[in-house]
Amino acid sequence: MSIVTVGTVAFDAIETPFGKTDKIVGGAATYISWAASYFSDNMNIVSIIGDDFDMSELEKLRARGVNTDGIEIIEGEKSFFWSGKYHMDMNTRDTLVTDLNVLLKFNPVLPGSYKNPDFLMLGNIDPALQIKVVEQIDVKPKLVILDTMNFWMDIAMDNLKAVISKIDVITINDEEARQLSGEYSLVKAAQKIFTMGPKFVIIKKGEHGALLFHKDQVFFCPALPLEEVFDPTGAGDTFAGGFVGWLDKTKDISFDNMKRALIYGSAMASFCVEKFGTEKLRELSQEDIQARVNQFINLMQVDITLD
Amino acid sequence: MSIVTVGTVAFDAIETPFGKTDKIVGGAATYISWAASYFSDNMNIVSIIGDDFDMSELEKLRARGVNTDGIEIIEGEKSFFWSGKYHMDMNTRDTLVTDLNVLLKFNPVLPGSYKNPDFLMLGNIDPALQIKVVEQIDVKPKLVILDTMNFWMDIAMDNLKAVISKIDVITINDEEARQLSGEYSLVKAAQKIFTMGPKFVIIKKGEHGALLFHKDQVFFCPALPLEEVFDPTGAGDTFAGGFVGWLDKTKDISFDNMKRALIYGSAMASFCVEKFGTEKLRELSQEDIQARVNQFINLMQVDITLD
Repeated sequence: MSIVTVGTVAFDAIETPFGKTDKIVGGAATYISWAASYFSDNMNIVSIIGDDFDMSELEKLRARGVNTDGIEIIEGEKSFFWSGKYHMDMNTRDTLVTDLNVLLKFNPVLPGSYKNPDFLMLGNIDPALQIKVVEQIDVKPKLVILDTMNFWMDIAMDNLKAVISKIDVITINDEEARQLSGEYSLVKAAQKIFTMGPKFVIIKKGEHGALLFHKDQVFFCPALPLEEVFDPTGAGDTFAGGFVGWLDKTKDISFDNMKRALIYGSAMASFCVEKFGTEKLRELSQEDIQARVNQFINLMQVDITLD
Repeated sequence: MSIVTVGTVAFDAIETPFGKTDKIVGGAATYISWAASYFSDNMNIVSIIGDDFDMSELEKLRARGVNTDGIEIIEGEKSFFWSGKYHMDMNTRDTLVTDLNVLLKFNPVLPGSYKNPDFLMLGNIDPALQIKVVEQIDVKPKLVILDTMNFWMDIAMDNLKAVISKIDVITINDEEARQLSGEYSLVKAAQKIFTMGPKFVIIKKGEHGALLFHKDQVFFCPALPLEEVFDPTGAGDTFAGGFVGWLDKTKDISFDNMKRALIYGSAMASFCVEKFGTEKLRELSQEDIQARVNQFINLMQVDITLD
């Protein structure tokens, strides 16, 4: 089994009420790959970086079994850089700097070995680029999963709708689901988004958990109540990585297994926020992950016999 | 088994994006009693009304097995009246009118038959009155449950802390848990509230569900994703009524059964918001409730075998 993911590999500088970082490694594809690497042994990144990037970071990903052949390195250019500051509630943030740099030149070209993945994970990036990646795939994957955000709804809705029409699973947050559908109720929003193409709609609500909609079925996965959220950066990407990683590992795209994938994704995201950047995602064991999933099960478990 | 509840029996006038009502019957004790009446056959209200109240409403409660002997009727005075207008998101509202009327004279005196309940439900009301009710109970009930709100934290924190020190279960919303504890993390907030007296902390998050904390255990009950929320008034009281009603019916205050009580409370609250006021709570069958609880089970159910 295999996953191809497109997304940013970048530098971030993050400030939270608990501290601040210098430039650290970030980007959607980075978080997705670190999270998925605990489940899948065949993750392949498509991205672009400048020659300022810390190449030992690619080596660390390769040591986790991640294929970085699809990461283009542009000599004399700088990597994408984002800087943001979180407010006290950790749910809202101000963007301080967005330097697109090499992203302005990104024209994804898939290596031959990337053209037949079982799972295609379109990380949050310009939908015009997501479409280019979809068009280079030879055989329809088992699932195409798309992550996006309100920014693209504001400036590129037509392209976004074009890519949404070609995918199977969309992951967005609650406000984005409302913006995309024009419906306030998340139930109605999901129904409307089904008519745009996706068969599965995942609505992420951050500290309030995530909903999975499919036909007339719905599943709710809570977020783990944490004593401290240290840095929320990358939590959504990490969720996507755990989700697609679990599907790739288990080779099962039934609704029942997608529920499990939601829990594994949420478990990985709950680790992500415990330290800055990808730090926590680099030090996990399979036992850590199983113990965390067990916490989710205990959180949700109830034994009711209906009369 | 039996429940005594203290709280308002009142008139409300409600405006939502979907419509508006004239004066309709509301008040915490009203919602609690309607909800609990589907489970318990021994609910007893302590409250106060004016002679302007629609006495046929008390008759309807009595027909559901609710004892209204503890409702004092003040001749020549008006019942408590609240009027509010909900915003488009249905999570925020403006209070338009608060006429305390008879509430200013409320000095709860428990009838003799009320002094030995299995469950004491202190509805949201001045904590000084909640204390007066607690002090008239002869034998410690199986559980004393308290509902309160930020208003009392703002103006009567000392009295509120005094009553909190005497109860077993507190139900508050997430912002109130933060205000009461001074902790942003709900995990830390619950731990802090444990030190104030309660052994169980229920944090209500409205459309985002509810958390039950006890010692180092935590359970999450989602809210049912609804196509439409018509009127949220009384949802928290209805939740409390379903919760205590289930406990009274089952005579079991184990953590496992409290989880079930959370689901029954949430199921009743999900009905409450579907129509104005108590309207929906008057027309349910046991089959409706079982079907709704089944929807909650489906929403939460996942089958994971850990490696």
